[in-house]
Amino acid sequence: MRAGIAPQKCSAREVQSGCGGAARSWGNSLAPPPLRGPKVLTIDTMNPTVKKVEYAVRGPIVQRAVELERELSEGMKKPFVEVIRANIGDAHAMGQQPITFFRQVLALCSYPELLNDSTFPEDAKSRAHRILQSCGGNSMGSYSASQGIDSVRQDVARYIERRDGGVSCDPDDIYLTTGASDGIVTMLKLLMCGEGAARTGVMISIPQYPLYSAALAELGAVQINYYLNEENCWSLDITELQRALDEARLHCNPRALCIINPGNPTGQVQSRECIEDVIRFAAKERLFLMADEVYQDNVYADGCQFHSFKKVLFEMGPEYSNTVELASFHSTSKCYMGECGFRGGYMEIINMDDDVKAQLTKLVSVRLCPPVPGQALMDLVVNPPQPGEPSYDNFIKERTATLSVLAEKAKLTEQVLNTVQGISCNPVQGAMYSFPRITIPKKAIEEALDKGQQPDMFYCMKMLEETGICLVPGSGFGQKEGTYHFRMTILPPTDKLQILLNKVKEFHQKFTQQYS
Amino acid sequence: MRAGIAPQKCSAREVQSGCGGAARSWGNSLAPPPLRGPKVLTIDTMNPTVKKVEYAVRGPIVQRAVELERELSEGMKKPFVEVIRANIGDAHAMGQQPITFFRQVLALCSYPELLNDSTFPEDAKSRAHRILQSCGGNSMGSYSASQGIDSVRQDVARYIERRDGGVSCDPDDIYLTTGASDGIVTMLKLLMCGEGAARTGVMISIPQYPLYSAALAELGAVQINYYLNEENCWSLDITELQRALDEARLHCNPRALCIINPGNPTGQVQSRECIEDVIRFAAKERLFLMADEVYQDNVYADGCQFHSFKKVLFEMGPEYSNTVELASFHSTSKCYMGECGFRGGYMEIINMDDDVKAQLTKLVSVRLCPPVPGQALMDLVVNPPQPGEPSYDNFIKERTATLSVLAEKAKLTEQVLNTVQGISCNPVQGAMYSFPRITIPKKAIEEALDKGQQPDMFYCMKMLEETGICLVPGSGFGQKEGTYHFRMTILPPTDKLQILLNKVKEFHQKFTQQYS
Repeated sequence: MRAGIAPQKCSAREVQSGCGGAARSWGNSLAPPPLRGPKVLTIDTMNPTVKKVEYAVRGPIVQRAVELERELSEGMKKPFVEVIRANIGDAHAMGQQPITFFRQVLALCSYPELLNDSTFPEDAKSRAHRILQSCGGNSMGSYSASQGIDSVRQDVARYIERRDGGVSCDPDDIYLTTGASDGIVTMLKLLMCGEGAARTGVMISIPQYPLYSAALAELGAVQINYYLNEENCWSLDITELQRALDEARLHCNPRALCIINPGNPTGQVQSRECIEDVIRFAAKERLFLMADEVYQDNVYADGCQFHSFKKVLFEMGPEYSNTVELASFHSTSKCYMGECGFRGGYMEIINMDDDVKAQLTKLVSVRLCPPVPGQALMDLVVNPPQPGEPSYDNFIKERTATLSVLAEKAKLTEQVLNTVQGISCNPVQGAMYSFPRITIPKKAIEEALDKGQQPDMFYCMKMLEETGICLVPGSGFGQKEGTYHFRMTILPPTDKLQILLNKVKEFHQKFTQQYS
Repeated sequence: MRAGIAPQKCSAREVQSGCGGAARSWGNSLAPPPLRGPKVLTIDTMNPTVKKVEYAVRGPIVQRAVELERELSEGMKKPFVEVIRANIGDAHAMGQQPITFFRQVLALCSYPELLNDSTFPEDAKSRAHRILQSCGGNSMGSYSASQGIDSVRQDVARYIERRDGGVSCDPDDIYLTTGASDGIVTMLKLLMCGEGAARTGVMISIPQYPLYSAALAELGAVQINYYLNEENCWSLDITELQRALDEARLHCNPRALCIINPGNPTGQVQSRECIEDVIRFAAKERLFLMADEVYQDNVYADGCQFHSFKKVLFEMGPEYSNTVELASFHSTSKCYMGECGFRGGYMEIINMDDDVKAQLTKLVSVRLCPPVPGQALMDLVVNPPQPGEPSYDNFIKERTATLSVLAEKAKLTEQVLNTVQGISCNPVQGAMYSFPRITIPKKAIEEALDKGQQPDMFYCMKMLEETGICLVPGSGFGQKEGTYHFRMTILPPTDKLQILLNKVKEFHQKFTQQYS
């Protein structure tokens, strides 16, 4: 026996005998029967903020689409032979091919034996080698630092510097994330503070990507809607920002302004002037800026160009670049990559208070780290093959092909939809969606409301049942009262997209006739 | 011009001109200067619950370890040549090798061209083929269903049925997750409800894995501590559960009971009797059970065996199996796999109210899906090579080797630590940690408190500075007042572990002498 504080030693077999002697006094035979009655966790006793969460992109319409697919596969007769999912920006599911180089490197990182395989190009091997060297034990199976692998964050910083014409970027301001959603929710979480009229309010565009409304509902924040101007290609008006902010100040504490550029679901690409104005507005009104820039390579329209908030901020001079707090988000899921399943992403934070940053770093450490394959993929996106490297030509060929096809489909979608009486579609300048406005006849609106459905949900559900096309009703993204829309991705292969658009056209005509 | 509701059509070039005319009235030249003053987001105005979060496993001691590594790499002289990280269960980082079969399949899934490569075994190819067939567009780059890939959930269900001797499992009760942490936080989130004395309380063991305390702090729940019995090999006493619960009922609404088995950080393996008692207790007291079973294959001690809560629950008969609500968690990160970086995991939910389950499904859909490579890996874990398949023998050889080495190291750790006067270590029956109790001399305690440090943080920090060994102080996991511990992983390679244990021994002796 050693020092007095030592606990008694005990063998495995001893502890097998149970949970401690006294405790067993109401053991097997004496146990009272378990209480009956309602469950511990019921709809009435669960987290009320979770109940308020809505996420239309995977909502009831998609559940019905899954059912229909099952029914089809079971041989049930339908007026269509397949369900076409145009509800979600899931490029590979719609047939887009991955970039060969990216997948070669991921295979090499997964199974490093392949580094001896002479059929893999040397640049893929050297990228894989560099990534593995940054992993504990040279394995993607190790946890990374919670903020992300150092070398990946360095590559992200260099990418941002190139993208933004040399504006400097500190790898220490980069946090790798589990897709962009993870970073956005984390930043919103940091901003939550106050109760009642002092509760954090967050400005989001309407229409919006419903991750924002869902996260704000779950966090118990106040959602402040500012409306994009559909009549001017979904542009962002500062007067509308001001209106929304002034009204919100009466009942909450507006602290952040979220922008999605290029826009989801609306597909607009913001001009440089607009971004400057937004930054000035944020500075004047002391709002934390959140720039969702996951579609930064998805710009199709002539005369449109992607401008990052970071670049514009820094070009506005130190008066702004030293003060305005900004978080911007990127992802491996969109652009020409479309690698949604890997859940890769990063955020860059600018002008964040050092103490808050330490809290952010602590907060992300609880979840250990973002998935390492997603980090590796993010690294390849920001550090793709360079001129002179063996994979360069093929990489450029694949990337260009994907982006040109998307540009073609953006145009096709706009054109066909605008031929339909009662459908009106702004140009799809960027991103991967169109968000056309639809006329729903009064009789259909009444029937929908009778059924307790939003009129555009009624419309989309009917379209799904009759054509197999799965779209998301505009009400899931928000829209001006009395207007109706749907979101449709431009991702199906061109021939299928053409069929889909024709079916939408036919359906709309039939629907309008039926309810007129 | 078409239907009256149609927005005006506009070209890309028009919208380029800005954010709407009126809005630009305080444009470039007229803009007021941004307000100076504190940032929008400061330590005083950030989310107060985030500030309360602590996560010792990646806390200040690890930050110092990272600094020391950098200093060493810059050529700075230290009393050691390398930092040994025994702070986190990160097997591959400590040299454990991945299972060849798993990595072959992941490489095949990443780069399906390899399906034509004759050097890959046929069973790896058929597994890869099956996984890819379940992915949209046959690509791991597609989003999966939010609950996880159907075929993977089916494989998980069959694994659970085999593991639990035939107790049935419905794939619809399986949710794939981003590591076990994700599932645990999601379940805790659902349980949050009420304010003040009606606020949700959650019972967790002390010592605990600090994910639990961190999540509860962030969610604003009440943490209810029940103490494991160190004197009886960290066993769980029902009397102690009852004491903790009765006291908690005075100030909150206890709704859930969390168990970690095999234990982290304590390494105990619960007996079947103990699990029965816990289930009876949960039934009697109407608590939702959460069983963290990520170390289910990590059982080393003679006479110890892993019993899943699910199996025991169902063997207790319908009185319990039809009523007790249970969520159990598993992961790809531990056991013989150690694939932490892939962030794979699942949870099984039993007896959950249908409406709550619908809410859960909705909630996970907001984050789109768990990383698909992690889902693929989880599939391989639950559906490894079978007898007769080409990879079977090698799989068994690798798995057995890893688990036997871990068992050896568990024993070695206990033995060496127990030779040190002032260190007392319970048997490491399972998991991958020892949590020895240490005697800290009074003078050292005083010096620590003078510095505002926990005595065991002071001890571990000193050990790190003098030996390069990175451990986590017991205070990060919780411990009985007046006792001190550290958590040390048993993961370093045996020869290095031997050196590490000897260094700990020397350090402890020197430290004791210095402060006596």
